[in-house]
Amino acid sequence: MASLDILDRATTSPADARAAFRSGRVEPTAGWSRGYAQANILALPREDAFDFLLFAQRNPKPCPILGVLEAGKTTGPLLAGGDIRTDIPRYTIYRDGEKVDEPTDVMEHWRDDLVTFIIGCSFTFETALQDGGVRIAHIDQGVNVPMYRTSTECAPAGSLSGPLVVSMRPIPAAQVADAVRITSRYPAVHGAPVHVGNPEELGIADLARPDFGDAVTIPDGHIPVFWACGVTPQAAVMRSRPSFAIGHAPGHMLITDARDSDYLIP
Amino acid sequence: MASLDILDRATTSPADARAAFRSGRVEPTAGWSRGYAQANILALPREDAFDFLLFAQRNPKPCPILGVLEAGKTTGPLLAGGDIRTDIPRYTIYRDGEKVDEPTDVMEHWRDDLVTFIIGCSFTFETALQDGGVRIAHIDQGVNVPMYRTSTECAPAGSLSGPLVVSMRPIPAAQVADAVRITSRYPAVHGAPVHVGNPEELGIADLARPDFGDAVTIPDGHIPVFWACGVTPQAAVMRSRPSFAIGHAPGHMLITDARDSDYLIP
Repeated sequence: MASLDILDRATTSPADARAAFRSGRVEPTAGWSRGYAQANILALPREDAFDFLLFAQRNPKPCPILGVLEAGKTTGPLLAGGDIRTDIPRYTIYRDGEKVDEPTDVMEHWRDDLVTFIIGCSFTFETALQDGGVRIAHIDQGVNVPMYRTSTECAPAGSLSGPLVVSMRPIPAAQVADAVRITSRYPAVHGAPVHVGNPEELGIADLARPDFGDAVTIPDGHIPVFWACGVTPQAAVMRSRPSFAIGHAPGHMLITDARDSDYLIP
Repeated sequence: MASLDILDRATTSPADARAAFRSGRVEPTAGWSRGYAQANILALPREDAFDFLLFAQRNPKPCPILGVLEAGKTTGPLLAGGDIRTDIPRYTIYRDGEKVDEPTDVMEHWRDDLVTFIIGCSFTFETALQDGGVRIAHIDQGVNVPMYRTSTECAPAGSLSGPLVVSMRPIPAAQVADAVRITSRYPAVHGAPVHVGNPEELGIADLARPDFGDAVTIPDGHIPVFWACGVTPQAAVMRSRPSFAIGHAPGHMLITDARDSDYLIP
């Protein structure tokens, strides 16, 4: 595939985007295939799959499941013609909860007993926020969204437990209600905020020092608004230490064939 | 517990209702504990639990999961202080997909490897429909809701497959939009209809002969409206024949501590 400028990335089809990453292109996926849903992934051995699916059922805001590839499957309707082992630009490999590699494909790590969970991502509602006139600070500032481990525990399930991880977007006080209203219509991609305005209550000591992603400058008159974040599953992996897991690398998402609008309710 | 008239049933707390069924009372639960969510249940051996949870994830309209009791658990937050083995008025026992018993408790059938799924029930939205001025024909006619196996297949998951089962309520043509609007706000209890007006397309040959429940008279000017039904999981058990399963008997539901309003969105 030839070099792509920003316009090309935005209009590249999901299938062509996946093919580009499969062919070796490595970059964050923000801005690619506008209008199509991007997703977090987590692959776990079959023995851990029930616990994770139950963890997701009990924690639907941070872990909204869009699809599941059963053990032995490497493709599915959300990535038609694709291959989950190669079609993400960069992956994270965990052994016993420790990150051991960040490869650009996982062919050599793959096992036939892995079940892959495809999990909603807030990129979907960011587009809706922008369409609704709400500016996104980390996009304006050219950085990754700031994410924080909180002192709020997810509901545990079997062997899996972990903290709720949130993303933060500073929102002008006059638009907080708009941001709640717009994102509440996307429950499959984290939905309404979990918290508005008081980071201390979430156990976040310093907004300038996120646990994942980048700090953003909070403009005057903006309120920090917190949404459940798709990094929560990987935080549960780090805490609970399943023998093996594969995730995407932060910001390097699966571009799916589902449209953002597929997840809009009512 | 003393004898109960209709008013008493409606105002009995969920905990007292469960205690009454635990003590041996046996009757359908329609009309009990008004304002509290009633639920379908399905208990399966741990080895089948992942497939069922995935089946539910892939078929959220007929199988909305409200809670899961992990293997070894017989109570949980939806039935605080209760016991899933005794607190439902009547159960259905399946071996290899065949109904073998309909006991009033399952103490002698219970196994420590059973995982219990608590599944949303349309009783919740029937209250909302009535509050919205939509009459419910089967309630007016004093019978159980009619339910039909359709020719629509659910999305399979591992060893589990089965037909979509629907319930039917005749709705005055002028109120069909209201019925859609009201029920769409309860996605955790089957949500909006799956079909309006044409039973042939669902493979239903004769509305007067339901597969479960009772036939209702369709008044002139009423349109048959079809909702996904919580009997679908038991239809999957009959088709897929897991070695063992426990369900509730039709109309004999778990009365939970959740309020109907807990499931109202947005």
